[in-house]
Amino acid sequence: MMSGSVKPSWVVEKERGRKAEAKETLWLFGLHAVRDALANPSRDKLRLVLTKNAFDKLEEAVAASGIEPEIVDPRRFDVPISPDSVHQGAALEVRPLNWGKLEEVCISGKGAALVVVLDRVTDPHNVGAVLRSAEVFGARAVIAPRHHSAPETGALAKTASGALERQPYLRVTNVADAMEALRAMGYVLIGLDGDGTVDLPQALADAGSRAIALVLGAEGPGLRDKTRETCDVIAKIPFSGEFGSLNVSNAAAVGLYAAATR
Amino acid sequence: MMSGSVKPSWVVEKERGRKAEAKETLWLFGLHAVRDALANPSRDKLRLVLTKNAFDKLEEAVAASGIEPEIVDPRRFDVPISPDSVHQGAALEVRPLNWGKLEEVCISGKGAALVVVLDRVTDPHNVGAVLRSAEVFGARAVIAPRHHSAPETGALAKTASGALERQPYLRVTNVADAMEALRAMGYVLIGLDGDGTVDLPQALADAGSRAIALVLGAEGPGLRDKTRETCDVIAKIPFSGEFGSLNVSNAAAVGLYAAATR
Repeated sequence: MMSGSVKPSWVVEKERGRKAEAKETLWLFGLHAVRDALANPSRDKLRLVLTKNAFDKLEEAVAASGIEPEIVDPRRFDVPISPDSVHQGAALEVRPLNWGKLEEVCISGKGAALVVVLDRVTDPHNVGAVLRSAEVFGARAVIAPRHHSAPETGALAKTASGALERQPYLRVTNVADAMEALRAMGYVLIGLDGDGTVDLPQALADAGSRAIALVLGAEGPGLRDKTRETCDVIAKIPFSGEFGSLNVSNAAAVGLYAAATR
Repeated sequence: MMSGSVKPSWVVEKERGRKAEAKETLWLFGLHAVRDALANPSRDKLRLVLTKNAFDKLEEAVAASGIEPEIVDPRRFDVPISPDSVHQGAALEVRPLNWGKLEEVCISGKGAALVVVLDRVTDPHNVGAVLRSAEVFGARAVIAPRHHSAPETGALAKTASGALERQPYLRVTNVADAMEALRAMGYVLIGLDGDGTVDLPQALADAGSRAIALVLGAEGPGLRDKTRETCDVIAKIPFSGEFGSLNVSNAAAVGLYAAATR
C-alpha cells in the first residue's frame, strides 16, 4: 500500500465506480432461471433461498454448484423481488455476468460472425426474447448501451429462458463507438427499419460472406440519428412498413434467421 | 311469436349461450389501442371514457367515430381495468370483433393464402405479437381455440399495437377440426417444432405454390398429440432445437417471413 501518497480525485472516482459495479447484484427467481444459473460456473452466486419443495426439485443442481441453500418456510419467502414475481420458491442472488471485452467476444467468439446491436431497447421481455433467438441462431453477442437498455434482472432472465446464462449480452458505454469497433473488425452494419431503402435479403447478399451486425432500435423512436448514420445500410424486412409493424424481438428473430440461413 | 310452444331445453341452452356471448364486452385502453378501435367501423363501441387531456389527443378520431365520450377527472378514472394498466386516460368498452366464418376468411380473404394456427397459446403478449407479424406478412387469419387461448383483452390489444383491429383472429371450437377444414380448402398444414423431421425451407419448397397453414404450440407443452397428428409435416426452423429455443411469437415471425418470401 502506498499509504503516504494521495490519489488524484479522478482515480478515486474511477475506483468508486468500479466498486459500485462490483457490488451490483440481482436476484434471479423461478426454478428454470435458478437451475440454469446454478449450472453456470461463470456466475458469481451469493445467496440461494429455497423452499423445501423447490430444494427437492433443484437438489442435484444445488449439490453440483457447491452453494449452501437457505431453506425457508413458503410463508416467509423474504427476498427483494417484486411481489407478483412467480418465484416458485426459488431465488438466487448473483452478480451480473462478465462476458469480457467486445473485441474478444466478437472476433473470436463461438458461432457464425453475427451479432445483434439493440439501440435503447428497454423492455426486458423483448431483450429476453432477443437473447433466446440470438442463442438459437448462433449469434456471438447481443450488444446494448449500459444505460437506457434493459438491465440484467430476474424478469429478463425469466423471459430469456436460460439464454441469459449462455448468450453474451454486452453492455457498452456508447453504441456508435461499439459499432465503429465492429466495423473495424470487419462487420457489415445492417440497420433494420421499415423505411429501409433495400430489402433485407438483398442487403445480406451484398454483404457476401462478411460478418453481420444487425442493428435494431426501440419500438416507436426506432434507430436514433447517430445510430442510423453509423450503419452501412438501412434494410427493410420485406412487407414490413406497409401495414403494421413487427415487435422488435420478432424483427430481430427474422433478421437472425435470414442472416444465419443466407 | 309461438307463445304456445315450449322450446326444447337444448334450444334454450344454445340461445342462452349466444346471449352470453353477445353480452361479452372488453375494455381497450391506451391512446393507440383506443384510436385504432375508434377508427374501425366493424367495432361495436359501447362506452368511451377519456380525460380532457386524452380527449384533446383523440378529438378527430372521436368525432369521426360518432360515439359520445364521457370526460372524467384523471383522479376519478373509474373503469374496470387492471390498476397497473397504462391507460393514458383513454378507455373504450367494446364487443369482441366478429370476423365471420373460417371458410370465408381463409378462402377469399385478402393477402397470400397463409394462416397461423396457435394451439393453446395463452400468453396475451405472445398472441398480440403474432397478430402484428401476421398482419405484416399478410396472413389471412390467426386461428386459435375458443378455450385455452388468449382472449381478446385490453392487454392483448395493447401488445398487438393496432393489429387486433385489422388482423382476423378467429376462435374455433376445435383446433383439429379447423385444421381438417383448412386441408379441405387446399392448405398444407406445416407444424413447427424443434424436433421436426424436415427443415422449414424444405417443407415450404415441397408445398410449392399451395396455401400454407403454420401450426405452433405453446411453449413447454408444444403441439398436442392430436394437433401434431393432424399436420401434414412437422418442420424445424434451421438451428432451433440444438441450443435454446425460440419464443413462440419469434418462431411464428420466422415462419411467416419464410413463407411470405418463398
